[in-house]
Amino acid sequence: MFDKYTYLDNGSITRLDERVFDEMKPYFFDIYAIPTSESGYSMGIEAREALEKSREIITHHIGASESEFIFTSGFTESSNMALKGVALAKRKKGKHIIVSKIEDFSVLNTAKALEKQGFEVTYLDVDGEGLVDPVLLKDTITDETILVSVQHANQEIGTIQDIEAIGEVCKEKKVLFHTDATHTFTRIPLDVQKVPVDLISVSAHTIHGPSGIGGLFIRKGTLLQKWMDGGFQEMNRRAGLENVSGAVGFAKAVQLVTTDENKYLQQMRDRLIDRILSEIPQTVLNGHSVKRLPQNANITFERVEGESITLHLDMCGFAVNTGSACFSRTLEASHVILGIGGEHERAHGSVRFTFSRYNTIKDVDRVVDAVVDIIENLRRISALS
Amino acid sequence: MFDKYTYLDNGSITRLDERVFDEMKPYFFDIYAIPTSESGYSMGIEAREALEKSREIITHHIGASESEFIFTSGFTESSNMALKGVALAKRKKGKHIIVSKIEDFSVLNTAKALEKQGFEVTYLDVDGEGLVDPVLLKDTITDETILVSVQHANQEIGTIQDIEAIGEVCKEKKVLFHTDATHTFTRIPLDVQKVPVDLISVSAHTIHGPSGIGGLFIRKGTLLQKWMDGGFQEMNRRAGLENVSGAVGFAKAVQLVTTDENKYLQQMRDRLIDRILSEIPQTVLNGHSVKRLPQNANITFERVEGESITLHLDMCGFAVNTGSACFSRTLEASHVILGIGGEHERAHGSVRFTFSRYNTIKDVDRVVDAVVDIIENLRRISALS
Repeated sequence: MFDKYTYLDNGSITRLDERVFDEMKPYFFDIYAIPTSESGYSMGIEAREALEKSREIITHHIGASESEFIFTSGFTESSNMALKGVALAKRKKGKHIIVSKIEDFSVLNTAKALEKQGFEVTYLDVDGEGLVDPVLLKDTITDETILVSVQHANQEIGTIQDIEAIGEVCKEKKVLFHTDATHTFTRIPLDVQKVPVDLISVSAHTIHGPSGIGGLFIRKGTLLQKWMDGGFQEMNRRAGLENVSGAVGFAKAVQLVTTDENKYLQQMRDRLIDRILSEIPQTVLNGHSVKRLPQNANITFERVEGESITLHLDMCGFAVNTGSACFSRTLEASHVILGIGGEHERAHGSVRFTFSRYNTIKDVDRVVDAVVDIIENLRRISALS
Repeated sequence: MFDKYTYLDNGSITRLDERVFDEMKPYFFDIYAIPTSESGYSMGIEAREALEKSREIITHHIGASESEFIFTSGFTESSNMALKGVALAKRKKGKHIIVSKIEDFSVLNTAKALEKQGFEVTYLDVDGEGLVDPVLLKDTITDETILVSVQHANQEIGTIQDIEAIGEVCKEKKVLFHTDATHTFTRIPLDVQKVPVDLISVSAHTIHGPSGIGGLFIRKGTLLQKWMDGGFQEMNRRAGLENVSGAVGFAKAVQLVTTDENKYLQQMRDRLIDRILSEIPQTVLNGHSVKRLPQNANITFERVEGESITLHLDMCGFAVNTGSACFSRTLEASHVILGIGGEHERAHGSVRFTFSRYNTIKDVDRVVDAVVDIIENLRRISALS
C-alpha cells in the first residue's frame, strides 16, 4: 500500500524486518503455549526455552545477566514500572525524584503522577543543545532524593546524554539511576558493566522489532515494588502471560542491528543536515551536532509551520513528524524545543527526520530536494499574506 | 514441530488463527506507523483508521460505544488498571473492595497489593460449585465499599457467575462492578446494555488472537485514575504506543467466533465429562455442571497426582494442565479448588481440559482413551507402593 512511500520516522515505530517475522512465526502457530517449568508439558517447555534464549540474547548485548532483565509491553510500561516501583519501594527513605525537563512523556508524566501522590519532583534544566550538566545534577541531589531519571538520548532532538558521568554522580550520592534508552538501544553502545545505571527502559519497535514488547533492565540488588500485579511471571517481578512471539522477535531485532548499519544511518543523517543547512537559509539544527542519535535530524525552518511541511512532504510520499510523535497530535509547542530555550515559533517550525534500515542516501537526496522546494513555496506564500 | 500434538489447554493461550494473521500482516509491513490524527501523514492516518475500526468491531460485540473501550497489553494490565484506577479515584469515598475468593491472580493479587496500600479487601466465599451468592454479596457491601470484582467465569473450574444479578446488587448499592471476562469473551454472550457492569477485562489470546493485546471496557461516566502514565493515547486513558497489528488481530479474532463453534466446544466438553465420569471410577467434576464455560472441563482423579497425569498425557501428545496455568508452576494446591471447599488432595488430583477451534470430537475420544489407561496404571502403581 505504501510501496512508494518513504518512511522517515523510525524515531517511533519501524517496519517489521522480515527476518524478525520469520523468527516469530513458529511461536504463533507451533509453540504458542504458556511457558512452563520443567514439570509442564512439552510445548510449554519449548516456549519457556525460547523466552529464556531471547532474554539471554538481549541481556548479553548490554553485558547484563539474564536475571537482570524482564519483558514488558513496551518502554512506557518499563518507565512506569521503574519510577513507580522505586518510588513505592523507597518512599520511607525519601520522596524526592529528579528527571530532566526534556524526558519523553512516559517518564515526565509518570513523575507528574507521582507528584500528585506526595512525591517531590525536580525537573532539571538542560543546556541549549539539550544536555544535562552532571555538576548541576549533583547539586540538585538532596538527602531526600531516591531516584534520578535521565534519558540516554532525546526522542525529538536526538541529543545523547553523558549517562556514564550522570551514573557516577548517582552512584557517589547513593541514588538510583534510571535511563530511558528507547531510542539508543543497539544504536549507541551501552555496557552495564561500565556504566553505573540501575534501570534501563527499552522497546523493540524502534529497531524493526514487533510492537507491544519492551523490557526493563534491573541491576541485581535493586529493590522495586511490583507494579503489574497478578501471576508469578518474569521472576515474580511483572505479572501477565508472557508474549513469547514478541520476546523472540525482540531478540532477533537486537541481533540484526550491525555497526555498519549504524554508521550508514549516521551518514544519511549528516548528509541531510549538511545539505539542508547549506541549501536552505534560516534553518537551525535542534540538538547537539555530534552527541546525537545516528538516525535523527531535527531542524527548525524559520517562518514556516512544521505542520505545513509535514503535510507537503506527505503528498510527495515522505513521512516525517513535527514535534514528538505523541505530541504532534495536539499542536501544542514541543516541550523539548521549549526546554532547550527555543521560542514557540522555533518549536512550531521544527521537523524531525529519522532514518531506518529501509532508507538510503538516495532517499535523503530526494527528501532534501523536496524540502528545498516546499520551504521556498511556503515562505513565498507566507510573504504574500 | 507439534503437528501431532493435541493442544488441550486453550484456557490460556490459543494457537493464532491464520485468518487473524493475514489481517495483521499489512500492519507489520505496510501500515506500521504510529496512529496520528487527521493532521498527520497518510500512513499514520491509515493506522489510526485501522485502530478505530478494530475498536468499533470489539465494542459492537458487547453493545458498547467506541469511547467505552481502550486497548491494553492483556487482561492482567486491564484488571490492574480497573482495580487500581478505581481505588485511587474513589479512595476519598471509601476504602473497601470486594473480590471473590476464586478470582484469577490478576485480580486477587492486585487486591492484595491494594491491601498493603491501606485498602480493606473482603475475599468473598463461593459455594461448592464456585458460585458467588448475590445475597451474601449484598450483605457484605458497606458504606465504605467502592468496588466489587467478580469474574465472569473461572479460569480453572469454568463456573459462570450470574453477573447480571451481581451487577444489579452493585447498581442498587451504588458500587462499581468489574468483571474479568478473559475466558468468556465471545464464548458467552455479554451485552452491556443489559448487564449493569462498569468495567470488563478481556484478552485476545484466548480466542486465537495474538498475545500481548487485551482491553478494558469502561462504562461512560466511570471515573478511573490513569494508571499507565505517559502519552495521550487511548483517549488519554492509557499511555503507550498503540499496538495496531495487535488491535487488528484482536478484532478479527472476535469476528471469527461463531455460535456454532461455541456449541461444538460444548459438545466436546460434555462428551469428555460424560465419558470420564462414567468410565473411570472415583472421579469428580469440579465446578458447575451447567453454568460452565463451553470449552472447559476440570476433573479430580482421586488417589492420583495431577502432575503425573499431565506428564503421561504429554507423552501421548496431549497438553493439559493441573491447577491454573500460572499456579501449576509452583506445585502448591490450587486456591480455586480449595475455595470451593476441596481438600488439598482434591486440588492435587485435578486436571483441566480445555478445547479450542482446532480440536474435534475425535481428539476428545483419543484423550479419554489415553486417560483411562493412564489412571488405571497410576492407581495400580500407587496401590503397590
